[in-house]
Amino acid sequence: MATLDPGIGEKFSRRTKRAINHDGSFNVRRRGGPHRYDLYQSLIQMDWWSFIGLLILFFSVLNGVFAFVYLGLGLNDLPGVAAPRGWWQDFLSALFFSIQTFTSVGYGHVYPGSNGTGLVSSVEALVGVLTFALATGLLYGRFSRPSARIHFSQTAIISRRADGTPCLQFRIANQRSNILIDLQARVLLKTVDPATSNQKYDFLPLERDSISFFPLSWTVVHDITPDSPLYGLGPEDYEVFDIEVIIQLKGYDDTFAQDVHARNSYTHDEIEWHRRFVRAYEVGEDGIAVVDLDQLHVTEALTEELVMKNEEVS
Amino acid sequence: MATLDPGIGEKFSRRTKRAINHDGSFNVRRRGGPHRYDLYQSLIQMDWWSFIGLLILFFSVLNGVFAFVYLGLGLNDLPGVAAPRGWWQDFLSALFFSIQTFTSVGYGHVYPGSNGTGLVSSVEALVGVLTFALATGLLYGRFSRPSARIHFSQTAIISRRADGTPCLQFRIANQRSNILIDLQARVLLKTVDPATSNQKYDFLPLERDSISFFPLSWTVVHDITPDSPLYGLGPEDYEVFDIEVIIQLKGYDDTFAQDVHARNSYTHDEIEWHRRFVRAYEVGEDGIAVVDLDQLHVTEALTEELVMKNEEVS
Amino acid sequence: MATLDPGIGEKFSRRTKRAINHDGSFNVRRRGGPHRYDLYQSLIQMDWWSFIGLLILFFSVLNGVFAFVYLGLGLNDLPGVAAPRGWWQDFLSALFFSIQTFTSVGYGHVYPGSNGTGLVSSVEALVGVLTFALATGLLYGRFSRPSARIHFSQTAIISRRADGTPCLQFRIANQRSNILIDLQARVLLKTVDPATSNQKYDFLPLERDSISFFPLSWTVVHDITPDSPLYGLGPEDYEVFDIEVIIQLKGYDDTFAQDVHARNSYTHDEIEWHRRFVRAYEVGEDGIAVVDLDQLHVTEALTEELVMKNEEVS
Amino acid sequence: MATLDPGIGEKFSRRTKRAINHDGSFNVRRRGGPHRYDLYQSLIQMDWWSFIGLLILFFSVLNGVFAFVYLGLGLNDLPGVAAPRGWWQDFLSALFFSIQTFTSVGYGHVYPGSNGTGLVSSVEALVGVLTFALATGLLYGRFSRPSARIHFSQTAIISRRADGTPCLQFRIANQRSNILIDLQARVLLKTVDPATSNQKYDFLPLERDSISFFPLSWTVVHDITPDSPLYGLGPEDYEVFDIEVIIQLKGYDDTFAQDVHARNSYTHDEIEWHRRFVRAYEVGEDGIAVVDLDQLHVTEALTEELVMKNEEVS
Repeated sequence: MATLDPGIGEKFSRRTKRAINHDGSFNVRRRGGPHRYDLYQSLIQMDWWSFIGLLILFFSVLNGVFAFVYLGLGLNDLPGVAAPRGWWQDFLSALFFSIQTFTSVGYGHVYPGSNGTGLVSSVEALVGVLTFALATGLLYGRFSRPSARIHFSQTAIISRRADGTPCLQFRIANQRSNILIDLQARVLLKTVDPATSNQKYDFLPLERDSISFFPLSWTVVHDITPDSPLYGLGPEDYEVFDIEVIIQLKGYDDTFAQDVHARNSYTHDEIEWHRRFVRAYEVGEDGIAVVDLDQLHVTEALTEELVMKNEEVS
Repeated sequence: MATLDPGIGEKFSRRTKRAINHDGSFNVRRRGGPHRYDLYQSLIQMDWWSFIGLLILFFSVLNGVFAFVYLGLGLNDLPGVAAPRGWWQDFLSALFFSIQTFTSVGYGHVYPGSNGTGLVSSVEALVGVLTFALATGLLYGRFSRPSARIHFSQTAIISRRADGTPCLQFRIANQRSNILIDLQARVLLKTVDPATSNQKYDFLPLERDSISFFPLSWTVVHDITPDSPLYGLGPEDYEVFDIEVIIQLKGYDDTFAQDVHARNSYTHDEIEWHRRFVRAYEVGEDGIAVVDLDQLHVTEALTEELVMKNEEVS
Repeated sequence: MATLDPGIGEKFSRRTKRAINHDGSFNVRRRGGPHRYDLYQSLIQMDWWSFIGLLILFFSVLNGVFAFVYLGLGLNDLPGVAAPRGWWQDFLSALFFSIQTFTSVGYGHVYPGSNGTGLVSSVEALVGVLTFALATGLLYGRFSRPSARIHFSQTAIISRRADGTPCLQFRIANQRSNILIDLQARVLLKTVDPATSNQKYDFLPLERDSISFFPLSWTVVHDITPDSPLYGLGPEDYEVFDIEVIIQLKGYDDTFAQDVHARNSYTHDEIEWHRRFVRAYEVGEDGIAVVDLDQLHVTEALTEELVMKNEEVS
Repeated sequence: MATLDPGIGEKFSRRTKRAINHDGSFNVRRRGGPHRYDLYQSLIQMDWWSFIGLLILFFSVLNGVFAFVYLGLGLNDLPGVAAPRGWWQDFLSALFFSIQTFTSVGYGHVYPGSNGTGLVSSVEALVGVLTFALATGLLYGRFSRPSARIHFSQTAIISRRADGTPCLQFRIANQRSNILIDLQARVLLKTVDPATSNQKYDFLPLERDSISFFPLSWTVVHDITPDSPLYGLGPEDYEVFDIEVIIQLKGYDDTFAQDVHARNSYTHDEIEWHRRFVRAYEVGEDGIAVVDLDQLHVTEALTEELVMKNEEVS
């Protein structure tokens, strides 16, 4: 069986971290060259708290700057500013006027009374409406970005079929209540040559590599037949070869009306031996199937007899 | 023929409700785990009356809260509020000022006259414009979400071909006046083992599984040949095996410029025997084809002779 | 060769108009049933002048209604309205105040001076900002809707190859200066049975059914070999069988980053015999290829000799 | 091997410039016909500085026009305009009032005091909010337009494998820190007939035409076996036949949740002979792979021995 390069690299001077982290990211950095820092991508991908914090910071700094410009022009040019005055009070008055202009509230009890303040407030009003146009796009971009929320079992397991065939299994469920359609799974095995640190990738054929609907849970199964690159390997070998099982999922999301993707991997210390998954769904009295997301991770030991059978075959 | 798991589950402790409801939803609940409640998905998918109601509620509560904050700071800090005053009148004045700030109207006959009200009204103005930025995104998200409006015949039928071959048929039409392109159909049969309540799924091959355009109606046909899992089964068997015919449709929508999907199913009591569909379109005097959506459901009895032939074969 | 149903219908009581109009629409009406009128689809698809007209009408009516409500409450409740007054002047004052509220300009020289006008203006301000939120979505939806602007030659032609093989050809070019990628063509032949008015559809295999890039023009060619449903037919037969050549195009648009589709058809009276296309592009002195969209339709007669050869074969 | 027309044209009267420029554009112009100039496409595709400049120009001109309209109506109709007055000061006052109306700030110290200014300011306020609705859509359209930022090595190289097989190689890396999934490459060879200037295209089969992930760099390789259209050609032949290697890339972008495309080409003078690429990534001490974008272009000479071997084979 020819090896394949999934694009993660083959020849390395030393051992790398896991190829794919549990959040789907890769352990890769960029250096030199015309590296593009994409502002939009960053603003879309950062978490909500950072985004809101950044938004507040941006508004504060921008209005602070405009406030100082108004101060520099002199508050006499902003008729309506209340007495008594002082440095701090003047700054606050200028800041409030700035925000009223920026948000286009424009009460008008304070107003630009000179060409200088007239010009600056005109510019600020334009900047303000364009800023909110940008914010509208960013908020929509953040909300409407489709993403799969696939819940993976914490461990993969080496189990066995009724006929004694050993198999690699893991289990997934949809954290959201929407329906994924035509969900496809692709599983790669990464093995590292202990001598050279070179990496080798093989596809692991699956018992079933796609399902029509995904309302419940799905146990993905690779049979460890003599053709499998995992055939004949024990737990120690998994560690020696620094085995990593890399998973790529793709499905159509009914709500976003777009394809969504998910990635994850199991390293050798996240693979349990001689276990099987406990069923993660049941039927309620009303005839409705219930998925228990906590149950997704629950495994139980195989019976002695089955493990024996397993040992003989594996 | 190997059974297949479309992802709806196979082993159940008891009989489940139908797999797919007529609105395309599944009879599944989620429990435990890090279940994600997605605000955006909910706001996008709820019906328009609920959405508008929620919007009004949100505006009312938010402006009510701000009104109380202004009341707490004292209406003396909002110069311009009209006399005579009283609790209710004060609340209304504060509420109107709040809305004028929130929507950035800012007439200015009432204005923030202190640092306290200046700060609160600045915050409210920012919250206001960002709220409308969010509302813009949500309204667009709701509008632009592609969805197929496929009209299914109320029943599927067991009919027969001219040569006596029995067949399962149902009929669909597009409720919208747009054109769906390359519409594909996939039909699954669910049978339940009466003894164990386990479910079994088979694909039902179709006479034609896709059409290039979908301006009229489409009768989807599965021939009940000896290869069909329905071969030799009568109406009682359909009930014993709790038969459900599950339909998945996919096509390209010309208006939204995106793929759209639709789902439906027919249970054994939604299947009529020995019927055929009456034609649902005709040509007007102007040479334009007319689809009659009411006619979509109309079936008529097969002739005695054909049913006989049918009985012999089936 | 089995006939196929592209979804346009087969059995008709009388002759229909052409299946597909030059703008890609179908000659189909809907009747009865739960026909969905989709406001968003209509607003997205109507031409720009209708859309802008509708927008102006909507703004005028809505502000007119609000103006009458203010008039009903009495202009004494809107302090700042200028004297002298009269019915028409009052209406204009109320209308201007309404528009200032609706657009959230809110100068404030006129302001709501009672609970009644305070409430109505609050509602109008909210309606206003939400209306512009909607308008934002609609404008974006109209702009960002991908659509191919494929220019088709006015006629299809029956030409011949150097070896005398007759062929059906038509030619397309991209009206836009963007690039379409992986453009695919699918051509169907509709023939009508003169006796029964039933319609029959066949795919016409193409010399080449896709191109990688589409910067210039593309001549789509179907060879009329003995396998072709057009083999042996002359111009009179084309008319008797009411022949229509139906074209479906699909490609990836580099600007919209989405697939775009186009449709067209040629009826028997839009097919020219014994012609060939004149080349529609040339290379300028600067080495840049120039497509001449006017040249796209230009055909010239085949030489006598070739037509002869043609006649023998066809 | 049959030649193919990728849609770039085959028969030309004289030599053309390269088919594809380094920015992915084609050397094609349009002339005549109903050529569509798409405003949205232009506004989406122009660079940011041009876009912002155009925006400022548009705002300035529009507000300038409205300012002159107010001047024409007479500033006495705009109560609140400050004294002393003069032509320039009047223009500025009208301009500031216009901008305050256009952005819906509406301080109100200047306000429309007649039916004429009331009407014009109403129209301007509506135009203003709709303009910002449009700007919102344009800004979002610009930001959310997916585009691959693939960094290509400056030159392609003719290298050799360990067994002496010569091969054509080029190398790419992702300039962005997002992950491209299922990246596919397609490579075409353009050769020009020196006598007729006709162009001929062949696909160059690749050692590997897709990778699952693209976090690092990817060396695309075409083996120059006896089947290859490049077999037996030396550097002079490359020039005589005006060889151009055309590259088309397609992958799924995780951030934009859409397919992205990239194009490039290497002409004969951008192909280096007897070189090999130096590795462009390494593993840091923390086990994280580091891609060096500057290193992407670095090649080194093959050993004498290998070139010899190469010469014999090629």
